[in-house]
Formats: sequence, C-alpha cells, structure tokens
Amino acid sequence: MHILVINPNTTQSMTLKIAEAAKRVASIGTVVQAVNPLNGPASIQGFYDEAVCLSGLLELIEQHPEADAVVIACFDDTGLDAARCLTDKPVVGIGEAAFHMASMVSNKFSVVTTLSRSVPALEHNLVRYGLSTRCARVRASDVAVLELENPDSDARQRIEREIQLALKEDRAEAIVLGCAGMTELAQSLSNEYGVPVLDGVVCAVSLCESMVRLGLRNSRRGGYAPPAPTARGTQ
Amino acid sequence: MHILVINPNTTQSMTLKIAEAAKRVASIGTVVQAVNPLNGPASIQGFYDEAVCLSGLLELIEQHPEADAVVIACFDDTGLDAARCLTDKPVVGIGEAAFHMASMVSNKFSVVTTLSRSVPALEHNLVRYGLSTRCARVRASDVAVLELENPDSDARQRIEREIQLALKEDRAEAIVLGCAGMTELAQSLSNEYGVPVLDGVVCAVSLCESMVRLGLRNSRRGGYAPPAPTARGTQ
Amino acid sequence: MHILVINPNTTQSMTLKIAEAAKRVASIGTVVQAVNPLNGPASIQGFYDEAVCLSGLLELIEQHPEADAVVIACFDDTGLDAARCLTDKPVVGIGEAAFHMASMVSNKFSVVTTLSRSVPALEHNLVRYGLSTRCARVRASDVAVLELENPDSDARQRIEREIQLALKEDRAEAIVLGCAGMTELAQSLSNEYGVPVLDGVVCAVSLCESMVRLGLRNSRRGGYAPPAPTARGTQ
Amino acid sequence: MHILVINPNTTQSMTLKIAEAAKRVASIGTVVQAVNPLNGPASIQGFYDEAVCLSGLLELIEQHPEADAVVIACFDDTGLDAARCLTDKPVVGIGEAAFHMASMVSNKFSVVTTLSRSVPALEHNLVRYGLSTRCARVRASDVAVLELENPDSDARQRIEREIQLALKEDRAEAIVLGCAGMTELAQSLSNEYGVPVLDGVVCAVSLCESMVRLGLRNSRRGGYAPPAPTARGTQ
Amino acid sequence: MHILVINPNTTQSMTLKIAEAAKRVASIGTVVQAVNPLNGPASIQGFYDEAVCLSGLLELIEQHPEADAVVIACFDDTGLDAARCLTDKPVVGIGEAAFHMASMVSNKFSVVTTLSRSVPALEHNLVRYGLSTRCARVRASDVAVLELENPDSDARQRIEREIQLALKEDRAEAIVLGCAGMTELAQSLSNEYGVPVLDGVVCAVSLCESMVRLGLRNSRRGGYAPPAPTARGTQ
Amino acid sequence: MHILVINPNTTQSMTLKIAEAAKRVASIGTVVQAVNPLNGPASIQGFYDEAVCLSGLLELIEQHPEADAVVIACFDDTGLDAARCLTDKPVVGIGEAAFHMASMVSNKFSVVTTLSRSVPALEHNLVRYGLSTRCARVRASDVAVLELENPDSDARQRIEREIQLALKEDRAEAIVLGCAGMTELAQSLSNEYGVPVLDGVVCAVSLCESMVRLGLRNSRRGGYAPPAPTARGTQ
Repeated sequence: MHILVINPNTTQSMTLKIAEAAKRVASIGTVVQAVNPLNGPASIQGFYDEAVCLSGLLELIEQHPEADAVVIACFDDTGLDAARCLTDKPVVGIGEAAFHMASMVSNKFSVVTTLSRSVPALEHNLVRYGLSTRCARVRASDVAVLELENPDSDARQRIEREIQLALKEDRAEAIVLGCAGMTELAQSLSNEYGVPVLDGVVCAVSLCESMVRLGLRNSRRGGYAPPAPTARGTQ
Repeated sequence: MHILVINPNTTQSMTLKIAEAAKRVASIGTVVQAVNPLNGPASIQGFYDEAVCLSGLLELIEQHPEADAVVIACFDDTGLDAARCLTDKPVVGIGEAAFHMASMVSNKFSVVTTLSRSVPALEHNLVRYGLSTRCARVRASDVAVLELENPDSDARQRIEREIQLALKEDRAEAIVLGCAGMTELAQSLSNEYGVPVLDGVVCAVSLCESMVRLGLRNSRRGGYAPPAPTARGTQ
Repeated sequence: MHILVINPNTTQSMTLKIAEAAKRVASIGTVVQAVNPLNGPASIQGFYDEAVCLSGLLELIEQHPEADAVVIACFDDTGLDAARCLTDKPVVGIGEAAFHMASMVSNKFSVVTTLSRSVPALEHNLVRYGLSTRCARVRASDVAVLELENPDSDARQRIEREIQLALKEDRAEAIVLGCAGMTELAQSLSNEYGVPVLDGVVCAVSLCESMVRLGLRNSRRGGYAPPAPTARGTQ
Repeated sequence: MHILVINPNTTQSMTLKIAEAAKRVASIGTVVQAVNPLNGPASIQGFYDEAVCLSGLLELIEQHPEADAVVIACFDDTGLDAARCLTDKPVVGIGEAAFHMASMVSNKFSVVTTLSRSVPALEHNLVRYGLSTRCARVRASDVAVLELENPDSDARQRIEREIQLALKEDRAEAIVLGCAGMTELAQSLSNEYGVPVLDGVVCAVSLCESMVRLGLRNSRRGGYAPPAPTARGTQ
Repeated sequence: MHILVINPNTTQSMTLKIAEAAKRVASIGTVVQAVNPLNGPASIQGFYDEAVCLSGLLELIEQHPEADAVVIACFDDTGLDAARCLTDKPVVGIGEAAFHMASMVSNKFSVVTTLSRSVPALEHNLVRYGLSTRCARVRASDVAVLELENPDSDARQRIEREIQLALKEDRAEAIVLGCAGMTELAQSLSNEYGVPVLDGVVCAVSLCESMVRLGLRNSRRGGYAPPAPTARGTQ
Repeated sequence: MHILVINPNTTQSMTLKIAEAAKRVASIGTVVQAVNPLNGPASIQGFYDEAVCLSGLLELIEQHPEADAVVIACFDDTGLDAARCLTDKPVVGIGEAAFHMASMVSNKFSVVTTLSRSVPALEHNLVRYGLSTRCARVRASDVAVLELENPDSDARQRIEREIQLALKEDRAEAIVLGCAGMTELAQSLSNEYGVPVLDGVVCAVSLCESMVRLGLRNSRRGGYAPPAPTARGTQ
C-alpha cells in the first residue's frame, strides 16, 4: 500500500517530521511518501494561507497516481473537498482524522492549536463535520507554526498551559493537538497528563490504511462528482 | 465609490451580464468594475472549481487597490474568508448577500441552484453562516452554469419547476436564485410567482454600498488577521 | 425615498438622537422621519415592555402610508413579525440589521446591551434568526436605557468594560451595541478598540435603502400573509 | 386552587368550549375561570393577531389577582414571556404544555394546526423552547379557527387527513392538536388512531395544578424580572 | 391512583427519603409506593452504574402491574426508553421531569449534580430531550450520592457554592438539583436564593398524576413499540 | 493483536456471520474472537432489547481480559458508554464506526436499517455523536433482524428499495447498512449502486486495529471514569 502524505506548506523540516511520524505508525508493507509543494506559504496559518497553498496541493495529488490514499497533513484540512472531487481514493485530513478518533475515546475533547487566527477555520470545520458538539473548545497556544521547528522555543510550555486549562476549565476528556508540527509531542503529553492526546498525522495515516483495506472509496455522487472536463481544461 | 465585482470564472459573457445587473442597482456616483481572471475554470461548479479559481480571484483583489469594496460574484462565495484576510475593505459574497437579505423578507426561503454537485457547498455555507435554519431546501435545477448563457436552452422552465416545488413542498416564502448567471431572471420570476425572488449580485452590490457609506470594514482580529509577511513572500 | 423610523418607547430625546444618527447615514434624497408613540413605556427593557409598546408601534405604521420602508428602532426588534403582516414594505429591526451586518465583517461578534433582563429576549432573537452561532455572547453592561440619555452617567465606561471582556474572553471579532440609545457611541468606540463596532440604527436605515432600491418587499405567503379582515375589524 | 384560563380572542363560544375542557380535567377543589378580552381579534391566526391581542390579555391577568395560576389558551402562546414578567404565579401556554407533555410519551410528535399562516409562529416557539428536534413537522389543515366553531364544516376530516399523513410520512409517534378550538376532538381522535393525541388546554390546566401544588413559581431573575415602575406608569 | 416510584439503586435510606418527598406532594387518594431492587449498585454514578441497574429496574415494573404510572427516581433517567417499551402507562424520569418543569418557569436553568463522572450522561439526556439550549450548564458539586445520606457531611455547602456560581456566571434563572438524594434540600434552597430550585422527584410524581388524570399513555408506535415475544422469551 | 467482537444477541448463526466478516478484514496477526451471551434477546430491536442484553454484554468484556480491543457488534451501539467505564481498551460500536467512516467519504449518508422501532435509537445516537447533520435519513426496510438469517426471504429486495429511495430522495452520497446481520451484503450493493455502502462490522474491526496500533485508549476522566468499587461490589 502506498500512502501519499502532503504537507501543503513549503517547510521541508516539517515535512520530514511528519514523514517520521507517519512511518512510525504505518503497517509493514505500507510505503509512506511525504511531499510538499515547491511554492506557496511557509506555514498555513489562517484562511489566506489555506487558499494560496491549494493549487500546489492539488497538483501533487495529480502527480502521484500511484498512491492508494492521500493524507492532507495540515490541521485546517485545506483542500479536502476539492481533492475528493479529483480522485475516488481515500483522502483524509489530519484535522478530521483526529476529531473522529477523539470522539471514539472521550465524551468531549479540546483542541490546542497554534495562533488565534487559526481558530475560526477549525471551528468552521468542526461545525461542517458535525462534531462541534463534541469539542469543548478550540484553544490557541500563541505558538506560531514555525516556532515548533525551533528546539529552543518555549512552545511546549505554552501548549502544556492550554492542556491544563482544557482539563480544568473545559472538562475535556481528551486533547487534540491542532497542528501537524506538534506530531512528536503527542505521546509524551499523553503520558504526562494521563489522558488521550491525539495527533492528526498518525490518526490520518492509520485511517487511510483502514479505508484501503476495506476497499472504501470516496463517493462520486453529489458534491464529490468529478469536475467537468472543461472546468479543468482552462486551468 | 468604486466597487470591484469579481466573476471568478473565465466566461466573459457572464461577466458582462453580471456587470449589467450590478450597474442597474448601483447608486449614482458608484463606479462598478466587473472583472474575471484570464485563467481558470469556465464555470464554478462544485468544490474543485472553487479551489482552482482562488489564486486568480485573490490576485484580482490585489491588482485593484482603488476599489472601496469587493463583490465575489460566485454563488459559492469561494475565497470569501481568504479575501477578508487580504483587505479590510468590505468583501461580500453573492451567496451570503442573498441569504441575509432573504432572511429579512421571509420566515423561510429555498435556494434554486444549477447542478446537484453544487448543493453540498451551498449547504455547508448556510451552516457556517448560521442561516441553515432559515433555508427550507437547496434545490438543483440540473441546469449547468453555461446553459444559462444560451438563450435557446430550456433553463428557465427547469428553474421554474423547482420554484413551484419550493413554494408547494418546502413552504418557502421567498426564493433565492443560486447562481450569478441567473441574475437577469429574478425580477420577472418575482412578478410571475408573487414572492420575493432574490439575486445575489444586486444584493451584494447594494450591501457593499451600505457598508462603505457606514464606514464598516472587516475585522482584523482573529480569523481575518492579515497574513504574516513570510506566508505571502514565497507565493 | 421616505423611511419611517419608529422608536417604540415614549422618550423623545431618544427619538431625536436616533433621528440624527439615521439622517447622518441616509443618502441624499432619502427623507428620514423619526417618530414615537404618545403612550407606552418610557424605555423597552425586557419582554413586558416589548408587549405593551406594540399597539402604539403598529398604529404608527398604519398612520404613515407614505413611507417606503420602516425601521423598528428598538434593539429587541419588537413587533417585527406583526409589522410584516401589516405591510409588504421592507420592515427592518435594528437588532437583526446589526446582527446580519456583523456576520459579514467578522467570524464572531459579541453584543453589549443594557440590563441583564434584556439578554434572554436578544438570545431568543438570535436563535430565531439563525445567527446564534455567530454571536459569542450577549453581555449586559448594567446601564439602564435612560441612563444613556444622561451625559453625566458613567455609562460609557461600563460599556467599554464589557467590550474589553468581549475581545479578550469571547474572542469576539466585532461588537454590536445592543440598544438604540447607544447609536452615537459606535464610531468612537470602533476607533478606540480597532474593531468594527456596529450600531443597529444606521445598519437598519441603510438596509432599508438597499431594499427599496432593489425593489425587495416582504413575502405575503406563509407567516407574513395579511391578517384576515375580521381579525382587524374588532380591534 | 383558582386557575385563570384566558382565551385571548373575543369569540365567546370558543371560551366556553375551552372552559368545558378545562373543567373536565381539573381536580376537585380547583376553580377554573375562563375569560376573554372584550376587544381584539376574533381569532388568533398569525403574528399580527398575536400582537394586537396582547394588551387585552395582560389586562386580564392584572384584573384577576385572585388566580393562583394562569393558562394562556392560544396555541401560539402569545404573551407568555410578558405575562411571566407581570407575575410570579405559574403561567403556562397551551402550546408549550402540549409540546412538553408530548415529549414525555413519544420520541417524535407532529403538530396539526389551522392555517399555514400560523405555522412559522409555532416553528419559532418550538425552536425557542428547545423542542424543535422533538417535532417531526408542523402541519396546516387549512381549517380556519372559527370553522371549528361550526358543526357543519368538514374541519374534522381535514384534520384527520393531516394526522394520517403525520403517522405515515413524518413517522410521528404522537399528535399535538395546534389550536385551542380543537380541544374537544382529542380524545376521539386518540381512540381512532391508537396514538396519543394531545390537546394543549387540558395539558396546561393540569400542569398549572402541578406547579401550584409543588409551590413552583416563575423566576424573577434575568428575563422575567418585574418591569420597572416607570415602564408601567405611562401605559 | 397508584404511582410506583423506583429508586434503581439498592440504598434503602435513599428510597425512604424519596418516598417521603413523593408522598408530600401526592394528591389525596394517590398511593405512592417506593421500591428499590435487591441487587445492583448502591448508587448510580455514571454510565456503568446506569447499565447494571437496568434489569432490576425493569423487573420491578413487571412485578407491579397494579401501578397506574411509574417514576424512575434516578436523575440519569436510566432505562426510561426501555420501560416505555414495556408498558403504555406513563413512565417519567426525574431528570426529564425537572428539565421540562424548569423550562416553564425560567429562560435558562443550571443543573447542580453530584460527581463530574455523571455530567456527560446528563448532557447527553439534555441533547436527546431537545432541552440542551435551555440548560446553561451542568455543574458537579463533587458530592458523592451516598454523602447525601450522611447528615454530617458538608454536602449542602458544596451544593450551595455551585448554586451561587450558577446564578452569577451562568446567568441561570432557575436551579435543577441533579440527584434524587437532594430532594429534601429543594425548598430551603429556593427560599434562601430566591429562585426556583427544582427537585425531580416531586416534579415527576406530579407529572405522573397529571398524565393519569388526562388519560395520557405512552405511544406504542415507532420506538416504543412493545418488544417482540421472542426477544423477551430468552431473558 | 486480539480483538473481541461481541454480538450482544443470542443468535449464533449471526455471530458466525459477523466473525467471518471481521476475519476477512483483519490484518495478518490479528486474532478475532466473536462471542455472544448465552442468555438474552435473540435479536436487538429497539430500546427494550438494548437494555436487557447489557448485563450479558458487560460480563463478556470482563471474561476476556486478554482482548486488546472490543467491538460491540450491534448497530444500536448498546452498552458502549458503560463498556468504556469498565476498561480503557478501545471499545468501538459498529454504528459509530460506520457513521464516522461514512462522514469521511461523503457529504451526506443515509442509513438503511431493519424495523421502524429501531429508528429512534439510531437517531438518538446520531444526535449524541454529533453526526446527525451528516445523516440525510434513517430508513427502515421492514426486515426483521432474524429474516436476514433466512436465505429465502426477500430481505435484499426490500433493502435495495430503500437504497434507491435514499439515493433519489435523500440525495445520499453513501449508504450505511444499519444492522450487523447485513454485513455480507455491503460489497455487492456497493458494486451494484456505484456508491460507498458501509457495513459497521468491518469498519469497527479496522478502527480497533488502528487504535491499538496508535496506542490510543479510552479516557479515564469525566464520563468514562472507572466505576467506584462499591458500585460494582453489590452486583
């Protein structure tokens, strides 16, 4: 099985970190290929970045017909619906993957993400997925995405402060880390706080494996119908 | 006052039709400039087309700093949130404009749009705007966007059939036409059926005029904070 | 164009203040006529006041057939649905006007109103309009409506305190002032806090102008059907 | 115990019918007094009638301080919130009474009311009470309120047709009759169709008895705080 | 009239306390019989206890065919739907009884229950009943159910602290006590805080009396259809 | 890895069919053990059956400490929350598994289940999980669970009729089969109708494998806290 993991920003150190996490949970026999576009924003922080990374992201899907499934490794799940029009392979966003998984191990979870500018996009996704009633709160840690690439930053402390507040004030029973760049923190935070701490990258890779094994493909009816040829011809 | 009306598809006949409608309702002294990108899909029908027209759409906003307000003349309101990160000028989507206006003249409205593949995107928007409880149903007329440019098609009949069903089965008190290409039909359909029939293009132009007169600008806090310079530098 | 602005309470100083705000934003050629009933409550604070001002309010609409549109200048939008049964002219409440406008310049807004007794009525309206998901919180400033008419009160300070809390705790991206008597504060508060601060009076006047220009009228089907003659005969 | 049952329209035959139903279910020792205003609409059909009957309705509450509880015998529950500001006695609307009771004997109920113009008001109430998820559909029988006073009309047949559709199409497990004038039909329709058929008049009378026995009174905090003296002085 | 009140846990002192409360509000002529299973959990605190008390609870209903109505005296309303499949007699849970009654005397209420482990079950019930929009917050007092049986505990103080927070922070207009064991506290807390404080036991008994008087029975269609004989045969 | 698959009814032929489906999708190295209680209902059809199978179901979990994860193979997900209090191993219901998976391959799905008496339980689950907005409709095929065990019944035709209606009337983009007994039909129905047709058994087995590989365990905070020892002692 071949899983294409797309980091839609252009920061290669982040792509490497995502690749490592993905490979760690992939089954034997699963090839994980992590890629990123050459052009576009260095990090995806809010609606504008989400929009300008889209063409690079969709091209990568077209350039990799050998993939059996696609992970969109940006917690905003940018381009998810567009990608599902382009292919009937399973396409899973790391945000939705973590939200669905967290809903099966807790009554309510809180999300700890990066900057406050990203919060509304995540809240919209939760509403659209139907899972906003399962999320106690989306919390910003005020850690910029690229700070997570800097080992000297105090990012972990600021993330921990929000986890503590989520457990106390939100009565969250699980924590979802709201950025692909936080993938390596999940296990140790889960151990430290004694609650499930979910990272979307590993959840999405595992869900893609499940879907491929089950022979489950995207619907081609309604909203995910393939785009008309003319629409694509003038691109 | 200068209002930039962006048709995000590349079909110029549609841009002209939209321009005419916009100019008809603009106040004296308001300059309406209707534009479309040179490259991109010929029509926006569903999630994929929405995504691939975005870079053209956002560039047009940046190329027209003289505008006082921006109308996104695609009923899916594609790029609305991204555009609001790019500028604090009022940016109004024709979908949201029609939904908000219809909510002030009826208890419930139904939407009559083009193809069924567009329905989920409109439903998601309604949920995200909060107005899904005001919309009885989003109906597809099975009229492709570009058929509306062909005077010989039976597009009007098919649209009328859905209006009739909306009034009878959905108990709709108003009708929203769900495509910029239907703008010229609104007045005569309203006369024919004796209910408000709303076209988003004229609603959005008028709302932009209101906002400019009121000095109302997009928030720059939270989700509409300006994108970080690095994010834009690598584009 | 002739817009009738009804202050449904009997405090004339408030009617004058509302008239000034309305005239400031009206287009050239628009006549704004601000009126209030002779009898009824001196201010509308909660459900009971809303009910007892209704007959005066509805009579004023009937006494002014020359109006092209009607603004109900009470933030509770009292009598809005009844008024729309009485006429097919646009009737806009200042509460709904501000809520709809705020939804087009922010992801989430908070409302700062007068007394806590008014909060449930506003919350009910938000739910009924569909916009409760767009409102982070309705906050009471504990400023009585008529204190706003007294230049020596500390009303502004108490309103500002709630704005500060709304920006910090509610993560509001815009503020809606929840009382017609606050109309004159909007611009300077917006400048001070760097976020959109919306006053419903000017929003409603501008929306009425839009609707008249667009030829948009209330639906006469379903809930806004004209009352039966017998119903009105025995009044 | 003394229960004041207010029919807010001026049709005395309907007041008598309501009184009979109320007395039939009242406990021994409970005095039921059914009254109606002298002026106002002959029937309450929609938002306008709801508004114009309010002053008569509220006056009746003030004229009967001896009552221990008040039933508002109009299915739209008009004036309910205003009445609760006026007194801390239990005030129960026949609409809410039937909705709450139906929620305790079925998973989902449908409402069969009179004219389609009344449907939006009932739908708004269901949303505001929180019970819209329990109601499968509000159905109009196209029977005007006063037709129910005419023994020669085919009102019952038209109501039965909607009950049949509710059981089949809405999968309703119970039926709520949506007009005080239908009170005498409930028992025989329940026998005929083998499902609970609820009439709000008897539900409300019985709930008032319960509340008085339990010593339960309206809250005086927040939205039901007593109106300020000045507000009432100028009435 | 004969009302069977089932305490589904095995703590007899609690059954006695519940019986006293129920008898205090029952009408003359109503026989209240309070029972508990011989085996099962000593208190119902969370999902597991809810499940394991079910067979005892359902057997008690079958052993008492003489009852005219059944109260499930556990605030989680455990077994409510199953019981309604077993009989068409009114079956009322003390949780739903208090929620419905509180919705008729306040705009919003808060619940004060025992342990935090019980909160999600109550929140699920509120959502399922449709009344979650009426509940400001479910608060845990960290008082275990059986502490309420111990006169020396500081249970009341801890409950009062949450009531104070509910009135201040949640803007609750009424308080619902979220445990059958708190039944004796309701009246004095209501007096102390000047707001309705509702105990589900007395609400449920009174609602059962109403239903029996009104001849209202559970629906036998849809979800409450009687179980197939085979299903019951192998028990 | 060891996955315990519990069929909570006592029909062994159904347990065998479920075991086969589960083994077909399990990875190499995963041991699937399918069990059913010795006593209890022969099929789970509605709320009563759900309740009476619970003690058998929970005992089976306790009797199999060697399992790494548990599948509850009843589409009502009966006992799911109670089981999660009993163990921190992943416990997945086949209903929730199918709902979550369907939400990642379609905008909207419809459920085709057995008898109409089961519909409300499934609708309650969808609301509680948050996914009711993703489900277009829960449809009953009027096929009793045990008819699915009879190769001569016309069960498949009746199920297909509902699938056809779901695609046409509900605009469903995917179908969820709402009974463990339908597991063997999914693949051929998916081929026949060209849309994803999901069976919860295989979805749940695969999700359990994912969770075990990811080291994801149920939360022990809040609603899933382990039951107090006393609660369990008197069982």
